[in-house]
Amino acid sequence: MSQKIRIAIIGAGPSGLAQLRAFAAIRSSIPPESFPEIVCFEKQSDWGGMWNYTWRTGVDENGEPVHGSMYRYLWSNGPKECLEFADYTFDEHFGRPISSYPPREVLFDYIEGRVRKARVRDAIRFDTAVKSVTFNQQTQRFAVMVNDYLNERCYSEHFDFVVVASGHFSTPNAPEFPGFETFPGRILHAHDFRDASEFKGKNVLLVGSSYSAEDIGSQCYKYGAKSITTSYRTRPMGYQWPRGWQEKPLLESVQGHTAFFADGSRSQVDAIILCTGYKHHFPFLDDSLRLRTDNRLWPLGLYEGVVFTSNPRLMYLGMQDLWYSFNMFDAQAWYARDVMLGRIKLPERAVMKQENAAWREKELEIGNDAQAFTFQGDYIRRLIARTDYPDLDTDAINRIFLQWKKDKKADIMNYRDRVYPSVLSGTMAVPHHTPWMEALDDSLQAYLEPSTLNPR
Amino acid sequence: MSQKIRIAIIGAGPSGLAQLRAFAAIRSSIPPESFPEIVCFEKQSDWGGMWNYTWRTGVDENGEPVHGSMYRYLWSNGPKECLEFADYTFDEHFGRPISSYPPREVLFDYIEGRVRKARVRDAIRFDTAVKSVTFNQQTQRFAVMVNDYLNERCYSEHFDFVVVASGHFSTPNAPEFPGFETFPGRILHAHDFRDASEFKGKNVLLVGSSYSAEDIGSQCYKYGAKSITTSYRTRPMGYQWPRGWQEKPLLESVQGHTAFFADGSRSQVDAIILCTGYKHHFPFLDDSLRLRTDNRLWPLGLYEGVVFTSNPRLMYLGMQDLWYSFNMFDAQAWYARDVMLGRIKLPERAVMKQENAAWREKELEIGNDAQAFTFQGDYIRRLIARTDYPDLDTDAINRIFLQWKKDKKADIMNYRDRVYPSVLSGTMAVPHHTPWMEALDDSLQAYLEPSTLNPR
Repeated sequence: MSQKIRIAIIGAGPSGLAQLRAFAAIRSSIPPESFPEIVCFEKQSDWGGMWNYTWRTGVDENGEPVHGSMYRYLWSNGPKECLEFADYTFDEHFGRPISSYPPREVLFDYIEGRVRKARVRDAIRFDTAVKSVTFNQQTQRFAVMVNDYLNERCYSEHFDFVVVASGHFSTPNAPEFPGFETFPGRILHAHDFRDASEFKGKNVLLVGSSYSAEDIGSQCYKYGAKSITTSYRTRPMGYQWPRGWQEKPLLESVQGHTAFFADGSRSQVDAIILCTGYKHHFPFLDDSLRLRTDNRLWPLGLYEGVVFTSNPRLMYLGMQDLWYSFNMFDAQAWYARDVMLGRIKLPERAVMKQENAAWREKELEIGNDAQAFTFQGDYIRRLIARTDYPDLDTDAINRIFLQWKKDKKADIMNYRDRVYPSVLSGTMAVPHHTPWMEALDDSLQAYLEPSTLNPR
Repeated sequence: MSQKIRIAIIGAGPSGLAQLRAFAAIRSSIPPESFPEIVCFEKQSDWGGMWNYTWRTGVDENGEPVHGSMYRYLWSNGPKECLEFADYTFDEHFGRPISSYPPREVLFDYIEGRVRKARVRDAIRFDTAVKSVTFNQQTQRFAVMVNDYLNERCYSEHFDFVVVASGHFSTPNAPEFPGFETFPGRILHAHDFRDASEFKGKNVLLVGSSYSAEDIGSQCYKYGAKSITTSYRTRPMGYQWPRGWQEKPLLESVQGHTAFFADGSRSQVDAIILCTGYKHHFPFLDDSLRLRTDNRLWPLGLYEGVVFTSNPRLMYLGMQDLWYSFNMFDAQAWYARDVMLGRIKLPERAVMKQENAAWREKELEIGNDAQAFTFQGDYIRRLIARTDYPDLDTDAINRIFLQWKKDKKADIMNYRDRVYPSVLSGTMAVPHHTPWMEALDDSLQAYLEPSTLNPR
């Protein structure tokens, strides 16, 4: 077989770009004739995945479900020092220290900087949505059928490997509560939240108690909502919320503008935002290829958290509950690359299953957040040890995670003003020129050029 | 070939239900062993298509794009006498005269009444989204691949015929205007509009000048918007709008809350609703099977407006610009049925193309609305003459269309209080118990039982 290996990557967000970057990193060390042919299918018209902001909600200009759940004024809710690429530091990109919680556009710029440098854009087919992926047992190849909206055609190609890098923050889990059909106001899922200004002067109810509720609530508060009510199923978030923000047990129903909660209390609400999470959703994959999991640290069925056990020619990136993100996708992409190149030999399926079960047992022993990010850090380090991805001091990152948790607990509305050191370069972050609560302009320009845009 | 003919219907809205009804109508006249096997795939969990209201926007509980563009408080914007089924009158369903412009739930009830009676529900597979349709030239059969969300599986089946009845009011055409990325308020397409109450006290901008702009604007006005601005590309709608409603030429850009129009004027707006139409969108069909058309009276490529000329085993229902609706779908479904049963013989492809070209020429001669609905009425009558669908006096219906246009022109906010006679039963409609502008409760119950719910 002198034919080139063909690899399809589904999605050009942080995971898919990590996969492209992983291959670019070894381009010069492999003779062109044996370098795999890589095609990345991206349904949006630009790369960046979730970090590619759009004002659109629902379906996009091509009639495909909008991928992004990104909203205006989003600032990182975790320290950038925890997600730094080991092969491309913030120092290298910005040439000077920046703050620890940058806004979306700044992170997008950083993600883009690395892949621009790696010259991978030509491998991406934009405005192209994957419609179906099937596997032919006889040929041991995948047929990938896509809708190419740029050229208004639908076509199929065959591949030896497929990398699913489509993320798991795109398909809302949106439960219905009694009374929703007749609620006289807007009901939306966090996925469709775009601009907090819309809720200025309104009483906003957020159903949920995880990151979306915490952050979208904070956004609405910051941009002038009249009141914020969050509703939890299990336990309150327990931060010291500002005046006008209350936590309630689970929503039971709504009647007109009145929301009723499990403790018998009620609130008047003008809008309801469902911060009720996302589904791992792969409608484009054949049944036998679909990962079925909830959002957790160790989804079963993925050897080393990457290789689909039932069909090891299929890779999944970033399907874990995320403490770590960009650098975990990297560790996985480098690992997937070496599996696809045959540099890493996989054990028998029985062994893979056994190891998976052992990881799951360890996962089930986790009792607190520190154990959770330590578990994920250990996993990443294990992956890195098996490839040439630059080393990453996950113990040091775990300490930053711990400090971040403390800083949030101490002051939920102002923790983004804190700074941490890079575990890669040692560079200490510098506070942003404007405290987060006063920073209403989240553009890259305003962020980098305070003197011209935000004279103080 | 003693094997039964297998027919797939995509969608259980008014068109798909018409197709099921058309077959049910001849069930008793065909021996069971030669009666076709019919499977209707419906991605929603109930039938009714667009008339099945949901509070959801974006994607549904299965992660599929929400089909419906239906909103609360929608009342028919055309006389029900123009859409009456020739085989199931309003009299038969309600047992007494009702008004001419009933609300959504009343029309849903009417649609449902007929198909309940016809006992076709078992043929429908709900929560099942068609993922791909391909045609095998060798076997002359279609492979239909679906996602069955009820049973969480993906499967394929083969069919001799496919009927596309998925409508063309589901996929928004949503142009972007400069400044949308930073507009500090909600921007939505009419497809995602659900409840006018959300816009109470707001300055609403509607981009577009067709039915959506006219009706959603009226809804917002009725439910307390502060001002309504509609923006047209070609010409104003020209009705006598109430105070607080202005028509502007095309939107050019927005900057903050300020909208700028082609005539140099500007308005302050809080929300923007794109009433910019829909796309004929069939991402699930193979390229060679896709109808490509804009919204017009005579889409090319459909013989008799139904049979896909390039592959006459594929039928399309209701793809025309709609003056007529339910009864046109019926005429088409009866015709499609007889083609699939071999009762109607199709001419050679060259002849089909020739006839299509002739229809297109006639279409291009249309100069006003009256000519448009007359054209469509003639088309329907031609279809009906070729099947056993009950006769329909389209000339009489055209006269009602004409009166409707006049009534709207005379009083755009109150035309729904007018009544017309049924062309089938002769029954004169009766005015609704409450004038439309005061009828805030649009439920079936309030509509039918004024005494208990709306004491006057």
